[in-house]
Amino acid sequence: MIGIALMGAGRMARVHAKAIGAAGGRLVTVYDVVESAAKSLASDTNASVARSAEEAFHHPEADAVLVATSSDTHVDFIIQAVKAGKAVLCEKPLAPNLADAQRCVEVLGAQASNVFMGFNRRFDPGHAALKKAIDAGEIGNLEQLTITSRDPAPPPLDYIPNSGGLFRDMMIHDFDMARWILGEEPVSIHSQGSCLVDPEIGKLGDIDTACVTMVTRSGKQAVILNSRRAVYGYDQRIEAFGSAGMVISDNPRATAVQRYSSSSFGAPDRVFTFFMDRYGHSYRLEIETFLGGVAASTRPPVNAMDGLQAVYLAEAAGASLRLGKAIELKDHCEVTWRE
Amino acid sequence: MIGIALMGAGRMARVHAKAIGAAGGRLVTVYDVVESAAKSLASDTNASVARSAEEAFHHPEADAVLVATSSDTHVDFIIQAVKAGKAVLCEKPLAPNLADAQRCVEVLGAQASNVFMGFNRRFDPGHAALKKAIDAGEIGNLEQLTITSRDPAPPPLDYIPNSGGLFRDMMIHDFDMARWILGEEPVSIHSQGSCLVDPEIGKLGDIDTACVTMVTRSGKQAVILNSRRAVYGYDQRIEAFGSAGMVISDNPRATAVQRYSSSSFGAPDRVFTFFMDRYGHSYRLEIETFLGGVAASTRPPVNAMDGLQAVYLAEAAGASLRLGKAIELKDHCEVTWRE
Amino acid sequence: MIGIALMGAGRMARVHAKAIGAAGGRLVTVYDVVESAAKSLASDTNASVARSAEEAFHHPEADAVLVATSSDTHVDFIIQAVKAGKAVLCEKPLAPNLADAQRCVEVLGAQASNVFMGFNRRFDPGHAALKKAIDAGEIGNLEQLTITSRDPAPPPLDYIPNSGGLFRDMMIHDFDMARWILGEEPVSIHSQGSCLVDPEIGKLGDIDTACVTMVTRSGKQAVILNSRRAVYGYDQRIEAFGSAGMVISDNPRATAVQRYSSSSFGAPDRVFTFFMDRYGHSYRLEIETFLGGVAASTRPPVNAMDGLQAVYLAEAAGASLRLGKAIELKDHCEVTWRE
Amino acid sequence: MIGIALMGAGRMARVHAKAIGAAGGRLVTVYDVVESAAKSLASDTNASVARSAEEAFHHPEADAVLVATSSDTHVDFIIQAVKAGKAVLCEKPLAPNLADAQRCVEVLGAQASNVFMGFNRRFDPGHAALKKAIDAGEIGNLEQLTITSRDPAPPPLDYIPNSGGLFRDMMIHDFDMARWILGEEPVSIHSQGSCLVDPEIGKLGDIDTACVTMVTRSGKQAVILNSRRAVYGYDQRIEAFGSAGMVISDNPRATAVQRYSSSSFGAPDRVFTFFMDRYGHSYRLEIETFLGGVAASTRPPVNAMDGLQAVYLAEAAGASLRLGKAIELKDHCEVTWRE
Repeated sequence: MIGIALMGAGRMARVHAKAIGAAGGRLVTVYDVVESAAKSLASDTNASVARSAEEAFHHPEADAVLVATSSDTHVDFIIQAVKAGKAVLCEKPLAPNLADAQRCVEVLGAQASNVFMGFNRRFDPGHAALKKAIDAGEIGNLEQLTITSRDPAPPPLDYIPNSGGLFRDMMIHDFDMARWILGEEPVSIHSQGSCLVDPEIGKLGDIDTACVTMVTRSGKQAVILNSRRAVYGYDQRIEAFGSAGMVISDNPRATAVQRYSSSSFGAPDRVFTFFMDRYGHSYRLEIETFLGGVAASTRPPVNAMDGLQAVYLAEAAGASLRLGKAIELKDHCEVTWRE
Repeated sequence: MIGIALMGAGRMARVHAKAIGAAGGRLVTVYDVVESAAKSLASDTNASVARSAEEAFHHPEADAVLVATSSDTHVDFIIQAVKAGKAVLCEKPLAPNLADAQRCVEVLGAQASNVFMGFNRRFDPGHAALKKAIDAGEIGNLEQLTITSRDPAPPPLDYIPNSGGLFRDMMIHDFDMARWILGEEPVSIHSQGSCLVDPEIGKLGDIDTACVTMVTRSGKQAVILNSRRAVYGYDQRIEAFGSAGMVISDNPRATAVQRYSSSSFGAPDRVFTFFMDRYGHSYRLEIETFLGGVAASTRPPVNAMDGLQAVYLAEAAGASLRLGKAIELKDHCEVTWRE
Repeated sequence: MIGIALMGAGRMARVHAKAIGAAGGRLVTVYDVVESAAKSLASDTNASVARSAEEAFHHPEADAVLVATSSDTHVDFIIQAVKAGKAVLCEKPLAPNLADAQRCVEVLGAQASNVFMGFNRRFDPGHAALKKAIDAGEIGNLEQLTITSRDPAPPPLDYIPNSGGLFRDMMIHDFDMARWILGEEPVSIHSQGSCLVDPEIGKLGDIDTACVTMVTRSGKQAVILNSRRAVYGYDQRIEAFGSAGMVISDNPRATAVQRYSSSSFGAPDRVFTFFMDRYGHSYRLEIETFLGGVAASTRPPVNAMDGLQAVYLAEAAGASLRLGKAIELKDHCEVTWRE
Repeated sequence: MIGIALMGAGRMARVHAKAIGAAGGRLVTVYDVVESAAKSLASDTNASVARSAEEAFHHPEADAVLVATSSDTHVDFIIQAVKAGKAVLCEKPLAPNLADAQRCVEVLGAQASNVFMGFNRRFDPGHAALKKAIDAGEIGNLEQLTITSRDPAPPPLDYIPNSGGLFRDMMIHDFDMARWILGEEPVSIHSQGSCLVDPEIGKLGDIDTACVTMVTRSGKQAVILNSRRAVYGYDQRIEAFGSAGMVISDNPRATAVQRYSSSSFGAPDRVFTFFMDRYGHSYRLEIETFLGGVAASTRPPVNAMDGLQAVYLAEAAGASLRLGKAIELKDHCEVTWRE
């Protein structure tokens, strides 16, 4: 059994702790800057409490480190864990901003491709089936890609100021999905952003509704639609159109029950509104993939370079919105805009 | 943690062993008449091997006994386990025939309602949601019920002679579903049976394609359709029609992916063909319910009386087919036909 | 242009008059026992009013006669129209009872196969596509057939006493559909009937909820479900299951619009509740087929023999219900039951 | 009956001629620069042949003129028909370019709002139901709009050079739909265009795959996706997302038939690939609306001003693509870009 040191004891750390158990891993120690949180999670999972990050990284039974602390600690924790010789999985994002993400990859050097970047949606059964169908040639050449990603409700307002903004906090998932599915880096990006859900979000300098388009060198087009609120639940769909067909990953449902009444005519069951109903599967499969890779000493399917590229697209999207123009992109995360 | 003694180490026993683990129970001992099978399963699950059924029933750490042996042993094992003071869950059917099922219930007396009858489909999320919708009054008064139950492929031919026949082996599930959803006992039953899938099944005296209709005292109508083979996978749907609407529990799909090509136009993903893909959920939820009931000392939602009633309907269906007429049913499993 | 004499000026006659126009036929004269009704329809359609049935049959510009009067006049009008040398389409049923239907076919002799029987549902695009798929071998050998046929609301109570009862009035359509799709005559039939929609219907000696099963010589099984009321609209579906697959003709919808809200999650648009929205297409295609056949002097795809067989099944279903047993059927409409 | 003079006898003119018949109008005369074409259509429809456009405009039995000639003649014919005192319906586009469209509206003055602009898709039952749902407040405030519009196959290559390009020829429909549904003019537009379907289209200076985004003053976002080829047929969907829900107008199907086999699992029937199967309804409803408006002397729901605005957006989209930047838009079709 792979032993894991878990950095963080907050919401996402608990999601991962549960996934570790379900995937057959063993949580050996938990670290959190808030010691009471670490104690609580450690006690729930039969793990020890690490009194320092350092202690966690060097726990003798830890084969791997899972970083699920706040974004601003990711880079340092990744670097330290790698130096301690551990396999690493880091929750998204790689870093809170492009400069830090670039620094991380530079310091890691060749090791960057060994750090498992926690973009869980690549492991969602529906999205993964779509990717597999494309790779199998089912739709011929991919030509247009639409990613819709709407959350049931906005986060608490006090989360917004330190979130990094919608592009780096929320759309970062979709940038990764787009790159993964396109199989090609975008060469330009253009953003639109509005504050339509809650004017308070606008007062805090953020947007809650966004539409980003990208185009690749070969002319593939991608659209990402984000909203911080969808009254019907998680609306996270992908549509990939190509020369020989189209494949859609639609919203999964709780059951295959359909309802008829004087006002409904075969209505499908509800889409999910609770985080773990929608994403539990993908986190478990992500951890299974991680543990399997550690056991087999194989490289992760998604790494720190992918983490960097997603942050790059997020910052370029932000720049496009602020500057009101499309941004030209380089293959290697070079900032091409001036603000 | 509830400790469980598992009677049987065959296919269904392994299904339950897995469910026990997932549901948070603890398998303490395994008994099987084939000792090597018991050893293999015990070794996979960190349980001990019981050298006799008796030893299993009296295992000091066993709070409950789960009977998953061949049908002809169910009655004796249930009775012995109850006498040993254990909570019992018995895999369907209660007994291989009506006489044995009646004997079981007579011997158990008041205890019959404490034996958990393993009709796992009651715990299928879709079917359970349908039942819940009906109980909540969503369709008004239930008037017509259609249960479709087709397996991907027939069992091996050598299974047929000891199976008890399609009605007692396969449709027994649907009889239980019908009673559960109707909320009322049928007063008459009429069967049609054909051998269309494999003539060898017919040579063995069984059928592979059946259509049974039942009517309750208040006039509710129920249809059950069975086939031993559906090339597209498990086809297990329920349609409940009532005065205020209809609710359908359709076949679940692996994902919400849809495909378009020059010959497909939004085709949904496949239905399940592997047993545990289709039923894993229901077995886990069944065991969770069982364990919860043992912990809380509450009565099971489905018991040996339900097991008896299902066998009664199965035998009446068989009689209807042989006699070529509808069979009148009594409330208390009295045989009303003469052959 | 084929000229048509229309017998009847009631609801169904108006349906046909409209279909004649849309299909490119020409209505030349209208007869109704209520002359004011005939005048009204004739005036709406630029046709003449026939002062007697006889006059209508011999109208010089009428190539064909369409009989859409009350059921008890069908036989006589068919016979007279055939004698007058006209092509004939008769609205269902062929006759109000089996004796009259048999008489009709006897008198017609070889001409029976030239009388177009107005079972419009054979021309419904969805049902016709299902039949075509079966004929093309898409599902291999047909094994189980389920026909669901529920009307939005029961007819006015004063219609019931002269309707002939649910089997002859409503299920007659489904008997024809079953025979057409099965491609084989049933050898036995068993009925269940209840009065669940409106007790007043029961007081008038009829039922409003029925379930009929039939089996063919080769063992194919068919189920017909009828209800006089479905709060969500016309519920008229067919499911054909076979050795190589299944094809379903589901309820059509007004549009392909889907709705999401806090309480609906991709709800399809409504099914139809207005007669002509649901059936307009099939009546037009029926008349197109009729006119095309008259022009080309080809035999109708559905004839008086089919009309007779449907009445036979309807009466056998009634007998099964009254006698409480399955009824054996002969190939040639011989009454095998005793009441 | 409203009498109509039809300008043009080509493909679109024949579509309209058929719709006029179905909608209860009367085609009185046909004009085409190719007299043989006019003769052929006139003979098929019992109309006269106009020897000149002038003669058609002044035909004494013509209440209205329907312009379905090539785009470069639209402006002159509209102006002449209006001067002749006739009601006018003009097939899209209003003009082949913005300058001509502006001239048309200037010359027409107040009459511009009396010219019925033939954007047939506003009359598509699904799209119209979506619009109606939004207007009824079903989705609250509209926030994001996605219009997908893919044709089954590209037009013949020799059509491309005079087509005006994808934005003015094909996406013009979607610009009108976007304005209609948004209920607000866009204030900026950004385009991406690729040639992925057929490199020959690129050699002719056009694109075949496009993605355009627009934003309105209040922050509503709209995306339009176009492709000249979809192997599965007409893919013309609209998704409108708002504060209280979402409504989707999906692709209609030939029937509600679903198929199951060893490789399909409830596959819906095909989407349409033939123009009149997909659009016949909308053209008929458009003409019904036009005729009803002429009879009642009411203003058309979509007029020459809408035609102008759509051409404006199409040209701005083209400019955005050529200039590689977003284009700011004015309310009144003022060209804000410099090339």
